[in-house]
Amino acid sequence: MRLLRIGLAQINPIVGDFDHNLGKIFSFVTGAKEKEIDLLCFPELCLTGYPPEDLLLRPAFLRDGLKALYKIIEFTKGKRIVLIVGFVDVNVDIFNAAAIVSDGELKGVYHKMYLPNYGVFDEERYFRAGDAPLLIELNGIKIGITICEDMWYPIGPAVTEVVNGAELIVNISASPYHMGKRELREKMFSIRAFDMLTPVAYVNMVGGQDELVFDGYSFIVDENGEIIARGDGFEECLVIADILFGDVSRHRLRDPRLRKEKFRSMVKQAEAKLICIDGGKGKKKGSFYFKQNGIKNPLSPLEEVYKALVTGVRDYVRKNGFKKVVIGLSGGIDSSLVATIAVDALGAQNVVGVFMPSRFSSTESKEDAEKLATNLGIEFRVIPIEPVFQAYLDVLSPHFVGTEPNVAEENIQARIRGNILMALSNKFGWLVLTTGNKSEMACGYATLYGDMAGGFAVIKDIPKTLVYKLALWRNELEGRDIIPKRVLEKPPSAELRPNQKDTDSLPPYDILDEVLKMYVEENLPIDHIISLGLDPMVVLKVARMVDKSEYKRRQAPPGIRVSKLAFGRDRRVPVTNSYRENDL
Amino acid sequence: MRLLRIGLAQINPIVGDFDHNLGKIFSFVTGAKEKEIDLLCFPELCLTGYPPEDLLLRPAFLRDGLKALYKIIEFTKGKRIVLIVGFVDVNVDIFNAAAIVSDGELKGVYHKMYLPNYGVFDEERYFRAGDAPLLIELNGIKIGITICEDMWYPIGPAVTEVVNGAELIVNISASPYHMGKRELREKMFSIRAFDMLTPVAYVNMVGGQDELVFDGYSFIVDENGEIIARGDGFEECLVIADILFGDVSRHRLRDPRLRKEKFRSMVKQAEAKLICIDGGKGKKKGSFYFKQNGIKNPLSPLEEVYKALVTGVRDYVRKNGFKKVVIGLSGGIDSSLVATIAVDALGAQNVVGVFMPSRFSSTESKEDAEKLATNLGIEFRVIPIEPVFQAYLDVLSPHFVGTEPNVAEENIQARIRGNILMALSNKFGWLVLTTGNKSEMACGYATLYGDMAGGFAVIKDIPKTLVYKLALWRNELEGRDIIPKRVLEKPPSAELRPNQKDTDSLPPYDILDEVLKMYVEENLPIDHIISLGLDPMVVLKVARMVDKSEYKRRQAPPGIRVSKLAFGRDRRVPVTNSYRENDL
Repeated sequence: MRLLRIGLAQINPIVGDFDHNLGKIFSFVTGAKEKEIDLLCFPELCLTGYPPEDLLLRPAFLRDGLKALYKIIEFTKGKRIVLIVGFVDVNVDIFNAAAIVSDGELKGVYHKMYLPNYGVFDEERYFRAGDAPLLIELNGIKIGITICEDMWYPIGPAVTEVVNGAELIVNISASPYHMGKRELREKMFSIRAFDMLTPVAYVNMVGGQDELVFDGYSFIVDENGEIIARGDGFEECLVIADILFGDVSRHRLRDPRLRKEKFRSMVKQAEAKLICIDGGKGKKKGSFYFKQNGIKNPLSPLEEVYKALVTGVRDYVRKNGFKKVVIGLSGGIDSSLVATIAVDALGAQNVVGVFMPSRFSSTESKEDAEKLATNLGIEFRVIPIEPVFQAYLDVLSPHFVGTEPNVAEENIQARIRGNILMALSNKFGWLVLTTGNKSEMACGYATLYGDMAGGFAVIKDIPKTLVYKLALWRNELEGRDIIPKRVLEKPPSAELRPNQKDTDSLPPYDILDEVLKMYVEENLPIDHIISLGLDPMVVLKVARMVDKSEYKRRQAPPGIRVSKLAFGRDRRVPVTNSYRENDL
Repeated sequence: MRLLRIGLAQINPIVGDFDHNLGKIFSFVTGAKEKEIDLLCFPELCLTGYPPEDLLLRPAFLRDGLKALYKIIEFTKGKRIVLIVGFVDVNVDIFNAAAIVSDGELKGVYHKMYLPNYGVFDEERYFRAGDAPLLIELNGIKIGITICEDMWYPIGPAVTEVVNGAELIVNISASPYHMGKRELREKMFSIRAFDMLTPVAYVNMVGGQDELVFDGYSFIVDENGEIIARGDGFEECLVIADILFGDVSRHRLRDPRLRKEKFRSMVKQAEAKLICIDGGKGKKKGSFYFKQNGIKNPLSPLEEVYKALVTGVRDYVRKNGFKKVVIGLSGGIDSSLVATIAVDALGAQNVVGVFMPSRFSSTESKEDAEKLATNLGIEFRVIPIEPVFQAYLDVLSPHFVGTEPNVAEENIQARIRGNILMALSNKFGWLVLTTGNKSEMACGYATLYGDMAGGFAVIKDIPKTLVYKLALWRNELEGRDIIPKRVLEKPPSAELRPNQKDTDSLPPYDILDEVLKMYVEENLPIDHIISLGLDPMVVLKVARMVDKSEYKRRQAPPGIRVSKLAFGRDRRVPVTNSYRENDL
């Protein structure tokens, strides 16, 4: 019986921390040995972490990466297990590569052939593309190797490998999360497997790295495109499955698509290199598709986004060496949600909430902030900004004489709050989490160096309407209102002038978010958006706000990407930009 | 006599401002007609401005760009002149393209073949690469078209064009400035011309766009590689030269390298497309290499950097719709230089200097700041921060109880100053220029939201040692000390605590800048730097400071790039980054 026990090591590496990543890899190898796994696959660039960005241009970094690889090779000496490990190969040029390692030997190296250079990806900046599909033969089973983007083209190295005899395709990946990504990924891999009549094993990393969160959800699809194993979302795990290869070839007899000369001739049949490895035959194992740890259910959509945020916060804080965070609590929905996420990520003892009232703060705001802090069990401090605000007004009064109060006085208050949080950060080493949402970021409805001051912008990619949904969902999960009910019900206000409401400056959030989704995320032309029945003046106003506030976003802290198009490396718009689409 | 009068229209476009760019192009066409120019070449992507970045992903932007091109075509109706204009072609996909336009017709389109995707360039993100070299024949002279990067490879489309008969290569370019770039560029083009036995006409844009400054310096080299015409640095101009083509072919008879079959067979001789254009023969013109406006002398090295900074400031301020700027004057060298640059860029009436003394400010600082303002003839304001600082200390005192004064109290002062400048900006619409230099940016010796608060960081890419040189040079140019002598002589201090000196925290600037140049710009491994004889502890300390302050730089305002490797789009390092090279 031609059978392979495959393991997918869904790990959370740290960019540039070779020791940490090696330790992680060794412990998964040890765990896999205990489970008698034949082939253990690690994610793309798991040795360096992903994306290492311009660290790749430092010779010492490349050298240290190769040293780490050789420690892995050493570690496998005498062990009957084959590893596929993502690393940076240095061979005349640098390559995004997969090492095939077994029993103290580097059996082969595959170079990624398709380099993504769009959205958040810049791989053409760093790597030379490979040009050689690679097969390994293990226990008489031919396995084709691919890396991430290689599988996002209908005709890529996997097809060449299959035409050259592969009965299983392995794809090692570092695929960042956005809403809907898991579904898309599984659907696509399912059809790739169906088209190639070949099972596909996909291993992804987990964890946060700056703006990116990797969701894991490694999986295996069979030759029909059915999911036969799936790992957890956002958690490290070892996915295990037994694949019986009699079935693959039997299936191909009945479904002869791969036989068609017309199809085979579409594929550039570069003689795929074949490496034979003795994996230690004759072990007895479970029967067909012995789903060692089964098919984990994916998270619900809101749970998934929430968990992405929790993961992003936890990893940004921890991987950057911080223990505690501080958050300005306004009594509003945004800071309430951010504090809740922070507690879920770091524990209540590591979160400090600071309420900073001004002359415009309502008593309700203070009550709501305090109640939230009590509900979360976090430290709560009150630091009034009024004396500082008055001192600013005094020193500025000779300069502001004859002017009406405007955004200048409003921003001073926001900036005092920013300074106070930063002073606490500087004094106690706490990281400041900012609380601005995507709707605000899009419109520039935020104060640079004020509420935008901080190390990490937790909900920067969450539109206001989704902020409400997440808060409601979290309360429901808890079975009580950790985020006070009134916070969810009162109209949003920045409280920087008397009776201020967000709707003084912005369209209602349901309309705003609809326009933003179309203009920013879907990149629709303005006249197209208007033709869908939206108020032209509103659409144009929103578009102009987005265009004009790029300078603020340029100085915003990084934040967690959960949408298909986040502000940040995803959307690279010049600050100096006179383009105004559809001037009316 | 086969003779061509060529014009290089070295213009300063604005990204996204099609009307402005069209107006500029029309006026240069009109000027060129008056001078009986046959062929007028505009820079790469001059119609959109460069780099348009993700505007290229907006369908409406592409559509408006094509509309603008058709206005140019229309404009040439009845005019006997051939234009080469950089634009974005949309044809199944998008291309970085050159339009050949004459007499109301689009005669042909060339697509850039080599797309740069390193340093500050991201063209693989946007464009499909072209695959067809293009020749035009004008007055019986065959001319090969190339775009920027195409010429930075020893074998590119130009060689194919020459092998197919080109006697002149045109290169339209958008090549950003850095120190030494002009020399490198002219040397390289000289050798390209020498290798191909073919004159090359190179047109570059001028002006600032966010972090980039384009230096112009368009030029023509003859078939020997000698410069026969050069335009100004950092100024718009029309470079004109007459080229006599009898000479080119005569030269090739004597130097038969292009005849060698071995060399010709190295070139992929894709049949280069040929477009014949009737340019209106028989005009009488001057004799061989009639250098219409001659060879402009390049600027001296310091003058060149200074002019890059002036250009960068002027264009950032003006293109973003600002009239006046405000600068915090500390009485130190950095803010003095920035104010001087601002005055040279915008005029003294558009620059406001604000001195913001604290309890730690010396009387010398105030005297120096005021003297500078007087020398420059700018408005000078004094806004003491002491009452605000005291108010902060008061509200924070219950929280800081039992702690020693540290960087928290220091940063509060810097942030008050940032807030005051931003308040003036918000009240009066002035842009805040920040004054931090590259040495500080590199080491994180700057306060986020404090002295880093502002719209544009003028000397962000100027190391401290170069700051001194530029200040001295500017004083010498003026023939008197506009920047007071004492400013140049006193030891640098942030004045945020008693008797503070920069050297309390940093190595002496001459050593610091040397290490930074090697570690950041030259990307040398740490052990290599140490092996050059530098103190290992100093080198390691500097490298650690650079590595650890990436989070600050991520939130810094954009600033002018003048070095081969500036902080910004040039150097994309993760914030979350545990890599520490050579931990001792």
